[in-house]
Amino acid sequence: MQPIQSIGYIGMGIMGAPMATNLLRAGFDVGVWNRSSDKCNPLKEQGAKVAASPAALAAGEPDVICINVSDTPDVETVLFGDEGVATGAKEGLIVIDHSTISPVATQDFAARLAEQGVTLLDAPVSGGDVGAINGTLSIMVGGSQEAFDRCEKLFNAVGKNITHLGPAGMGQVCKACNQIAVSCNLLGVCEAMALAKKCGLDLHKMIDVVSGGAAGSWQLANLGPRIADGDHDPGFMIDLVLKDLAIVVDTARKQTLPLAGTNLAESYFRAVKANPSIDGGKLGTQAMARTLEQLGGFQFDE
Amino acid sequence: MQPIQSIGYIGMGIMGAPMATNLLRAGFDVGVWNRSSDKCNPLKEQGAKVAASPAALAAGEPDVICINVSDTPDVETVLFGDEGVATGAKEGLIVIDHSTISPVATQDFAARLAEQGVTLLDAPVSGGDVGAINGTLSIMVGGSQEAFDRCEKLFNAVGKNITHLGPAGMGQVCKACNQIAVSCNLLGVCEAMALAKKCGLDLHKMIDVVSGGAAGSWQLANLGPRIADGDHDPGFMIDLVLKDLAIVVDTARKQTLPLAGTNLAESYFRAVKANPSIDGGKLGTQAMARTLEQLGGFQFDE
Repeated sequence: MQPIQSIGYIGMGIMGAPMATNLLRAGFDVGVWNRSSDKCNPLKEQGAKVAASPAALAAGEPDVICINVSDTPDVETVLFGDEGVATGAKEGLIVIDHSTISPVATQDFAARLAEQGVTLLDAPVSGGDVGAINGTLSIMVGGSQEAFDRCEKLFNAVGKNITHLGPAGMGQVCKACNQIAVSCNLLGVCEAMALAKKCGLDLHKMIDVVSGGAAGSWQLANLGPRIADGDHDPGFMIDLVLKDLAIVVDTARKQTLPLAGTNLAESYFRAVKANPSIDGGKLGTQAMARTLEQLGGFQFDE
Repeated sequence: MQPIQSIGYIGMGIMGAPMATNLLRAGFDVGVWNRSSDKCNPLKEQGAKVAASPAALAAGEPDVICINVSDTPDVETVLFGDEGVATGAKEGLIVIDHSTISPVATQDFAARLAEQGVTLLDAPVSGGDVGAINGTLSIMVGGSQEAFDRCEKLFNAVGKNITHLGPAGMGQVCKACNQIAVSCNLLGVCEAMALAKKCGLDLHKMIDVVSGGAAGSWQLANLGPRIADGDHDPGFMIDLVLKDLAIVVDTARKQTLPLAGTNLAESYFRAVKANPSIDGGKLGTQAMARTLEQLGGFQFDE
């Protein structure tokens, strides 16, 4: 098994830039590309080569190309567009897609890349920008076991809890499941806190008592106090969770699976975005609490 | 502050019997009463006196009377019925209601008892029969701070995480919030697992990966694996969560607060109970998964 040495990295956003930085620090040769090239500068200063296009990055014959872009069409463009990875890729290349995109499209992309001897690993992450900076991301991987094993050192440089879940697409399915649980748990947090507020119960006391038992969740412990204080600064933005839930809902539709709780959570997030008086899509997910405030005619921090 | 020495205990069910046992072991004088008197026998053998009625229990002039019965009307009967506590109670008595009942009714009961100099603490618990046996229950207390302080040693004999939340009814409000979060989290677990199953993702792997991050919850970590294995044995029965959610929904209605997620979870629990082929109400709450199986036309353990 030939070790991974050279990596091309596509997407220097809030996640990609710190992940590429961690790969540089771990001793990999890193080339980078971003749609707006100025975002490559911080990586260039740390020793990364900047490529002119995804095709040019691939033509440099790296062992692996990592991708961190926004949504399914963006991945399709950097892979199969006019100057996409596929035009420059040599047989044996491994592509790791860290973006959160459609599981079904991922299977299609994997099949198309396989035709030219390129292996796709879908490897969406959780843990946010803090996890990306600290190299503590959870990474949910689908695709060839052999390619997964070969990339072990790479994954360990950017993440902590790294799991191979099965064939192509399974990483994306797992991320979709993750976003379902996140959204429904937050729905429960908002409804529990709304009842507490309406009845005059101290919100912080309620969170403390309830967190330790069967009602406990990461969402309650971490976002409950921020809701109580009216703090809607983004950890994870509503625009992004809406993008992820669109993938979940589309995947469920293809599986003929009704997901009424998830649909409801999505609608509540959308109502925050729809509010004309605020730029709701840019708020943190905990701003779902605003929908409860609107429905119930109250304010959490009053 | 006069220490508590003698306690009357009403309700020798799955929770009351072990809680009364723990009070006996902690050195309190304990008298007991139960609607069907044979359930008092185990406590009698351990040294508890058995009373003929709640009124007789109260007439023995205990410092405290604890109540652990099923629902709001049951509490009303043991307090204010023909042979209820109120007929025998002397001024200065403290009544601790460990049942999960209506917060609004609790405020009414507290006011009626106060007229005869009796103090009501609402003190619903979480932690189940295991917590009751081990004396590790969480106890959410509403009512007079002075009475709460006086009962500290008593509470410590039956629970671990004991919090005074405010005036009468606030313990019950907090328990209602707890059941909202429990139910919506479980809804998220069932929907996430349904999508995983439909897409062919290994359920146990998904639970392991997702539990450590922002999607993590007690419900996922504890009930997720049982859902994956088709194990619907009761930790907490669907009949009981339906009783609790009826209280939640009624409380929310009185507050003019829409709780669509909780309503949905309640409907999904009810669908398990409605299934004529199983005695669904007696299954554990994780059997909510059966509703997803019905809706999605699949089985988790196949």
